Amino acid sequence: MNTVEYIINKLEEIGVNDFFGVPGDYNFNIIEAIENHSNTKWIGCTNELNAGYAADGYARVKGYGAFVTTYGVGELSALNAMAGSAAENIPVVHIVGLPSTKNMEEKHLLHHNFQQIDYKKFLRIYENITGASAILMRDNAKIEIDRAFKTLINEKKPVYLAIPADVVNMEISDRYVSYESTSDKDNLSEAAQRIATRINESKNPVVLGDILIKRFDAKIEYREFVSKLEAPTTNFLMGTNIIDMDLKNYVGGYYADFKNPIAQNSLEKTDCLIAVGAIYSDINSYGFNLPYKINDHIAIYGDYVYVMGRRYDNVRMPELLEEITKLVDKRTEKINKPNIGYKAIDITDEPLNSEYIYTRLQEFIKENDIVIAETGCVPIGIAQMKFPSSVEVESQILWGSIGWATPAAMGACAAKPSARVILVTGEGAHQMTAMEIGNIIRQGLKPIFIVINNEGYTIERALSKDPDLKYNDIVQLNYSKFARTFEGDIWAAKVYTMDDFDKALKITQIMNKMCYIEICVDKTDMPKLIAETSKKFKEKLQCKPAVSKKGSSDKQEQLKENQNISTFSGCFNYETTVHQKFKEEEA
Amino acid sequence: MNTVEYIINKLEEIGVNDFFGVPGDYNFNIIEAIENHSNTKWIGCTNELNAGYAADGYARVKGYGAFVTTYGVGELSALNAMAGSAAENIPVVHIVGLPSTKNMEEKHLLHHNFQQIDYKKFLRIYENITGASAILMRDNAKIEIDRAFKTLINEKKPVYLAIPADVVNMEISDRYVSYESTSDKDNLSEAAQRIATRINESKNPVVLGDILIKRFDAKIEYREFVSKLEAPTTNFLMGTNIIDMDLKNYVGGYYADFKNPIAQNSLEKTDCLIAVGAIYSDINSYGFNLPYKINDHIAIYGDYVYVMGRRYDNVRMPELLEEITKLVDKRTEKINKPNIGYKAIDITDEPLNSEYIYTRLQEFIKENDIVIAETGCVPIGIAQMKFPSSVEVESQILWGSIGWATPAAMGACAAKPSARVILVTGEGAHQMTAMEIGNIIRQGLKPIFIVINNEGYTIERALSKDPDLKYNDIVQLNYSKFARTFEGDIWAAKVYTMDDFDKALKITQIMNKMCYIEICVDKTDMPKLIAETSKKFKEKLQCKPAVSKKGSSDKQEQLKENQNISTFSGCFNYETTVHQKFKEEEA
Repeated sequence: MNTVEYIINKLEEIGVNDFFGVPGDYNFNIIEAIENHSNTKWIGCTNELNAGYAADGYARVKGYGAFVTTYGVGELSALNAMAGSAAENIPVVHIVGLPSTKNMEEKHLLHHNFQQIDYKKFLRIYENITGASAILMRDNAKIEIDRAFKTLINEKKPVYLAIPADVVNMEISDRYVSYESTSDKDNLSEAAQRIATRINESKNPVVLGDILIKRFDAKIEYREFVSKLEAPTTNFLMGTNIIDMDLKNYVGGYYADFKNPIAQNSLEKTDCLIAVGAIYSDINSYGFNLPYKINDHIAIYGDYVYVMGRRYDNVRMPELLEEITKLVDKRTEKINKPNIGYKAIDITDEPLNSEYIYTRLQEFIKENDIVIAETGCVPIGIAQMKFPSSVEVESQILWGSIGWATPAAMGACAAKPSARVILVTGEGAHQMTAMEIGNIIRQGLKPIFIVINNEGYTIERALSKDPDLKYNDIVQLNYSKFARTFEGDIWAAKVYTMDDFDKALKITQIMNKMCYIEICVDKTDMPKLIAETSKKFKEKLQCKPAVSKKGSSDKQEQLKENQNISTFSGCFNYETTVHQKFKEEEA
Repeated sequence: MNTVEYIINKLEEIGVNDFFGVPGDYNFNIIEAIENHSNTKWIGCTNELNAGYAADGYARVKGYGAFVTTYGVGELSALNAMAGSAAENIPVVHIVGLPSTKNMEEKHLLHHNFQQIDYKKFLRIYENITGASAILMRDNAKIEIDRAFKTLINEKKPVYLAIPADVVNMEISDRYVSYESTSDKDNLSEAAQRIATRINESKNPVVLGDILIKRFDAKIEYREFVSKLEAPTTNFLMGTNIIDMDLKNYVGGYYADFKNPIAQNSLEKTDCLIAVGAIYSDINSYGFNLPYKINDHIAIYGDYVYVMGRRYDNVRMPELLEEITKLVDKRTEKINKPNIGYKAIDITDEPLNSEYIYTRLQEFIKENDIVIAETGCVPIGIAQMKFPSSVEVESQILWGSIGWATPAAMGACAAKPSARVILVTGEGAHQMTAMEIGNIIRQGLKPIFIVINNEGYTIERALSKDPDLKYNDIVQLNYSKFARTFEGDIWAAKVYTMDDFDKALKITQIMNKMCYIEICVDKTDMPKLIAETSKKFKEKLQCKPAVSKKGSSDKQEQLKENQNISTFSGCFNYETTVHQKFKEEEA
């Protein structure tokens, strides 16, 4: 077995059958190995960034993903996609074809390099981003591959494997190495005991679930846990649909003090917060406004846990949740469950708006659908829907790179061809990577694209001082016509009114091909929650900052300073972030 | 004056009036300052990679360029464009909008970051690529900006300036700092003297000019030098049209032993090679096959020079050439000048092929045109044309990132609106960044796009073992229809025959708008020189390696090893590279 076959086999064992990428003259033999392998397929992409996004989308659905680029020009183009995978625990393997070791050792100035030749520059760049990175040399290839797969599988982080042309086909041993790590038994047992005791002694425990539950394969164990405990259960934005919305103790998503006073109130009065797989970023936590105390906090991560300030390492999330579930008592408090989801609206021939779009999509989305929500306004609109529990929702809230969703939808389709993949994107983001439509059609994939054309970067209009600033206007194109310029079969439509959108969605159900609906709305149209955040933010910019809780003059100064800063983050109050506390302890 | 105004003013002083980029919620106040400045303009791009390429194209024509992105997602997407600028000495300023210093210092987890928060990661990445990089803080902003501009101007390297939101509008001193450095007088004088003596004593001097002559603003001085010396003068691929082709001692471009025996012969028999601004990379030097001796070599770079093995620093290329010109004697040997350029071909209704395309384009290209040649087959076809000396030819031979040329053409148009910009690209490369057409139309720019549709990556077919391997097929689209889906006015046509191409080119001359010609050719069509290289390469892959000059068994082993390596570089012989020698000396 040679080096590249070993990598392909290891990937296939964990469910990767499709490899995205772009050929280049240093990766031919890698692509040939993928094509020659009995159970793997090459999916060529328009460019490398798109290939990285597609592999990310694939991994979000199937667990793992992989893509191939050529050195220098190819790998650097994909860096942002890999950074997104790193930020959000998406385990993707980036395979790069390098010149031969002889060329590198003798420092020949091949193309895709610098006048001051340096063949390790790209590795150094990737070391900043990935969980593990290596140039596979003749004497370390197997060790480095095994190390990378351990990181990929246990830490759910992307890894970078660059293979010199002559190492690709070099024979290596395929001696078995076990990749999966298990919990430290003592830590697991002590942490579970302390957590359960703390929960059982508390008056008002609350469970906050988030996306890392899915990333660390703990959805079943999480469901068992919250179903047994029956404490009020909420989620951050990325954790949309992480738990069955019909569960009687699910109180809806948490959006700070904008919406959902029941979730807000539960968090405010809790004496024991159990946060499971939570990412405390600005947008995900809707502004860091978590009003609970650090010392009463339990924070469960993929392979470690904080229990009221004490950290236990080597504790796997699924195992820990299983242990805790055995030990916790069911709560008996009555839970005030809010109405979840959008209320149906009558269909008229009125122009479309966000309220109707998301209401209608809620009705449209069915069991086992996969919803890819592009960064910007869309995830906020989607998060307030009610879904069947089998629906998967993916968005890139922490990294937030617009353009991600279009190729990610391609990846999701390839990962689960039996599922209906629905992409919802603004046209500004879509435009960045829209050329990938061609490859989606070419591969015979059949997603449904909902492209909301609101004439520019609406999320940026919401957050910049003046919504009419022309830099948020972008080039217009006829999207539905554009989608039909690619070779192959696609159904595309452009809709302006509620009833036309309704009809278009019905048509997609009888089309056995990719469907593309361009929705035209006013450029100021946005989900209500975004409009409210925008209003709050703009009040701040007009020199009406919220008074600092501590009231110190320093803080006042800092708030004033922030007034002129046109960033989303300017509208939030950073004083009480749990994450920050943790960092201090870790440091 | 505040930080961002200071940067904008300094850029305007060196000719940058147009700023490319993509808005994001950490760069609003930077873009606003550009829009509010009296003499600068914001040009929004489809995505950040394209913005970087556009700024690169702008700088190639106007001397300097600039673009703006947001932190994390934006800046990382543009990394490959910046790397290309770095490899090829294109001085571009990349301005990045960061969160406020408070947010960074207190390590708030804002979007576009990692769960393990790190606000300096992106700087560390860029330090690998740029000439100078800095996060501008309150206490170092001016010093860092001045340092970056010195590097930009003197080393012609791209620089990275990341500005926290609160530093953007911070007042800074605009105390004058001189950026331009001058030569060390002693070094200049001694180097010029030694070079002139060496040339005057030599029997068969040859001048090899290359692209760094243009990058270091020495075209006039170079012309004076070769016109006075009257030694045979040739160029590498990137140096196409660096010198007036009508000059009686210009012997055409150097393509190793493939073509042009006169240039080849001159280099073989020379006892004194004067290389000016030469980049000794694989493709640029057509395979490292330079058959001269290191000890007789003079190599002039932007700000240093090697004279027969001795290096002089702080010697500026234009000043050095001026000094040498004063000191050299005119040669009197008769020079055998070859025919340069393609010979006219009759127009018929036959299907198009590369030979006719480049022959017809040669006739079409006029005084002051700017030709942007995409990486791949195109630059080889273009390099063999004959041009008026005022024609500028730009291609990215060293870095070689396909997709570069389409946005670079946009940048070139913006840099010199009075010139006719002609893009020549294969459709595989074009597809990577083609969405930028929308912004070209939107900005009222009027390039002529020649898109050669040969159904895939033809350069890769030429260089991979089997031209029919399906990974070199790419998605097909109706390009001329595609170009018309953008809002605004464009003329687009699709041509299959010689006479149709001829007519289409004539039509562009009466159209006062962007013109787009899709040329359909057979997928095996390529310039003759590529076909010959491909043949040689494939002979090698079939185990017929050229015998090593040294004939050692080690070398034979290495050649055998290379046989299975599907890279372009595999077909060249690395033994006698001047550049390598220099590196050893420098080390």
